[in-house]
Amino acid sequence: MATATVDVAAPDRDRPSERPGLRDTLLTVPRGVAQVEFQPNYWTGLLFVIALFVGGWQFGVFGLLGTVVATVTAYLLGVPWNRVSIGLEGFNGTLVGVALVLYLDVRWMTAALVIGAAVAAAVVGSALNTALTPYNLPGLTAPFCIVTLIMVIGAPSYDRVWAEHANTAAPSATDPGTAMSWHDFWHGAFNGIGQVFFQDTWYVGLIFLAGLAVSSRLVAATALVSSVIGLLVGWWLGVPAADLGAGLYGYNSVLTGIALTGTFLALSRAGVIYAVIGAATAAALTAGISNLFTVVGGHTLTWPFVLVAWVFLAAVPNFSRLRRAG
Amino acid sequence: MATATVDVAAPDRDRPSERPGLRDTLLTVPRGVAQVEFQPNYWTGLLFVIALFVGGWQFGVFGLLGTVVATVTAYLLGVPWNRVSIGLEGFNGTLVGVALVLYLDVRWMTAALVIGAAVAAAVVGSALNTALTPYNLPGLTAPFCIVTLIMVIGAPSYDRVWAEHANTAAPSATDPGTAMSWHDFWHGAFNGIGQVFFQDTWYVGLIFLAGLAVSSRLVAATALVSSVIGLLVGWWLGVPAADLGAGLYGYNSVLTGIALTGTFLALSRAGVIYAVIGAATAAALTAGISNLFTVVGGHTLTWPFVLVAWVFLAAVPNFSRLRRAG
Amino acid sequence: MATATVDVAAPDRDRPSERPGLRDTLLTVPRGVAQVEFQPNYWTGLLFVIALFVGGWQFGVFGLLGTVVATVTAYLLGVPWNRVSIGLEGFNGTLVGVALVLYLDVRWMTAALVIGAAVAAAVVGSALNTALTPYNLPGLTAPFCIVTLIMVIGAPSYDRVWAEHANTAAPSATDPGTAMSWHDFWHGAFNGIGQVFFQDTWYVGLIFLAGLAVSSRLVAATALVSSVIGLLVGWWLGVPAADLGAGLYGYNSVLTGIALTGTFLALSRAGVIYAVIGAATAAALTAGISNLFTVVGGHTLTWPFVLVAWVFLAAVPNFSRLRRAG
Repeated sequence: MATATVDVAAPDRDRPSERPGLRDTLLTVPRGVAQVEFQPNYWTGLLFVIALFVGGWQFGVFGLLGTVVATVTAYLLGVPWNRVSIGLEGFNGTLVGVALVLYLDVRWMTAALVIGAAVAAAVVGSALNTALTPYNLPGLTAPFCIVTLIMVIGAPSYDRVWAEHANTAAPSATDPGTAMSWHDFWHGAFNGIGQVFFQDTWYVGLIFLAGLAVSSRLVAATALVSSVIGLLVGWWLGVPAADLGAGLYGYNSVLTGIALTGTFLALSRAGVIYAVIGAATAAALTAGISNLFTVVGGHTLTWPFVLVAWVFLAAVPNFSRLRRAG
Repeated sequence: MATATVDVAAPDRDRPSERPGLRDTLLTVPRGVAQVEFQPNYWTGLLFVIALFVGGWQFGVFGLLGTVVATVTAYLLGVPWNRVSIGLEGFNGTLVGVALVLYLDVRWMTAALVIGAAVAAAVVGSALNTALTPYNLPGLTAPFCIVTLIMVIGAPSYDRVWAEHANTAAPSATDPGTAMSWHDFWHGAFNGIGQVFFQDTWYVGLIFLAGLAVSSRLVAATALVSSVIGLLVGWWLGVPAADLGAGLYGYNSVLTGIALTGTFLALSRAGVIYAVIGAATAAALTAGISNLFTVVGGHTLTWPFVLVAWVFLAAVPNFSRLRRAG
Repeated sequence: MATATVDVAAPDRDRPSERPGLRDTLLTVPRGVAQVEFQPNYWTGLLFVIALFVGGWQFGVFGLLGTVVATVTAYLLGVPWNRVSIGLEGFNGTLVGVALVLYLDVRWMTAALVIGAAVAAAVVGSALNTALTPYNLPGLTAPFCIVTLIMVIGAPSYDRVWAEHANTAAPSATDPGTAMSWHDFWHGAFNGIGQVFFQDTWYVGLIFLAGLAVSSRLVAATALVSSVIGLLVGWWLGVPAADLGAGLYGYNSVLTGIALTGTFLALSRAGVIYAVIGAATAAALTAGISNLFTVVGGHTLTWPFVLVAWVFLAAVPNFSRLRRAG
């Protein structure tokens, strides 16, 4: 007899669902946006939304659309309210919305696809939850990565999807050369924070940084330091300066750094060294993932972060010098 | 604390093997063919075999060869008879046989490869059983997908395998255009059922549908509706009409629809909506998977179904509105 | 009975770390090299190191560098000494060092990358340990395969990494034709053993074989027979003779054969047949994996072995005729 116990949600099933109030319900949206970077703080989410609108109205609108659809889907399917209310069911929808409008342009068809993709992201998120719970790992932005990757790979085959797709070549395509200027460096440091949401304007990155600082000054400092770590790793390996300036080697380091500094890994001296190695690894991994997906028309997204964070967190139980947080 | 127990087969080992009778033994073959669509009914399997022979003698012969080899392999290795006898060890062999004769043509070498691939599919199936049991997920047609995909990717490097391979370009390669005719529509609806076994003649699809109806009228109705759902999703996205007419956007929806309607998911109003979303997702995923594998010379096979069904079933424990069947 | 409990490291954490002596510490290095082929015997490791230096000084130096860095990393992070001391944390570092100096040439940058890759391999190894423990599966050379694959895929994008990369085309690129000579055959048999460490000189393979014989004559015999099995499968499928002679169809069979003959699978008549099927499967899989990775600039490495061994071992609990070793 095949006996196995992964009884992931039994307690939630039988617990009477609490009746959420209007204010709490509305706040799931900014909390969802904030959870992209693991902050359950609605002020952080509000600043993130402002940053998206400063980056372009379409990023704000489609990001909110994705957040709402993913959250509502999870709620309707019966995900426990204590998980929905802190925004854990929304953030992959946010990223799906922002990414699809970037890659497929502002069109009604894109809005329809964002709705479909956000529903899919909610289901993928719950499936990952089942798969990862035995290992005590978080799903991170993997649902967004999975759904968006497969959609952009398939998109060129769909006549009504791909008619007027945006140009998304890396900056180095038109501006090669590996000599990094001071301008590249400080722009890259802020853009590394903005690129978590696909934004490449330095002051948009600054608003995101402010959003993080509202939640925790440690997190904000970690984000900035991690962005610089990623940038320096890329520079050392010989990445084109234009890509460094656009923050393309920073954003995965930012997310990895935050994840491994107090969020999912307990703070300690060894833990900080481990987080630095993780942030550097996420940057070093970027070109490999990018080349892998470019062949099939995919995009890097936050895959390097997801893979590095999963590996670095899954390894912790074997390392007596490190402990998981929470 | 993350505790999980995988105690996969201990009781089976020590249970004395029941002595199967001749009739029961022979019936494992049609039952195996029927299990491609989750039906443990040998009359269904018999109609499926007839459909294969109507589609072409080689599909019938190689499909039966694969079924027998996979079943015998599992039996010889010691898989419990209660699992072998209901055909659960045969159906991946059926599909391996049909697919390889389609992609590698009728030759003695292909027959040898079907034997090897069916053995491999039996082992992969048991490995998946071990991996998926903790999550209460079925292996579905994944063993077939894994073995066949890697074989067709490798085939061009083998001088004795690839000498006279068949042409398997999509119908749209010679017949582009997205304007769907009535002829495309109704052919596509039946071909979506036939394409589960790689058949693209409408009346072959009809025989498969009859086979399903013998087992359960609900399953047959679900198959037809799901095929139409997949076709309409493809049409809405702008898929070439010739591919829709060939059923290429239907067969993954057919399998997903059946899997999520009473087979592995309990029937309920929410469940049916969930199954419709799943069937639509399987169709929408098709181009992404297809583009991904075409780059390396692979084929779509039933990968979209396998991936969507796993994700949609793995998510269920987190959704209080849905329950697993059985 | 296959029972595994995921309670991943609690006991190790609280156990006081034993103080390793100098001799034991130094011997972790040759033990690490020997563990590439599952032997915890330092004499075997010493002969392997000699074989690497005979193959080229750079393979010896970079292989030792990788072994030391991976072992030290695991020790510093707090992996229990009883695991470190038998070399289980070193062997992926060995392979990383040998592979990177082959693909990226002898440069200081390559040495720096080997250090980074060996650290990453140690972390990936522990993560795999967590993921595979519930299934009672070993990590094998997967950490090496994962880290090296992603690095060689990314390398061309890094200006300072890829400047003078080595030519690593298959021998058949300049020497096509499938007619195998006696010279190809016996060279291939020994090279199949040497290619586990990327060596293609027959007497280097012979030294590796001697190293195995020091640990166990059964293992050495298994290696040689498996190498011939792989070679014959490749020849039967129509592989170019030059690739067969270079051992490219042997090394995955060698590792698979050893893994399934007494190492992770208990010796028995059914077990030996199973191991032969496994060794043949690893060879048959080689072209598929190779074609898959070549598209993105990757290399086959020992992926066929890792995948076949995992599948064949994971399947065992469902097969009453087979039992896991240990």
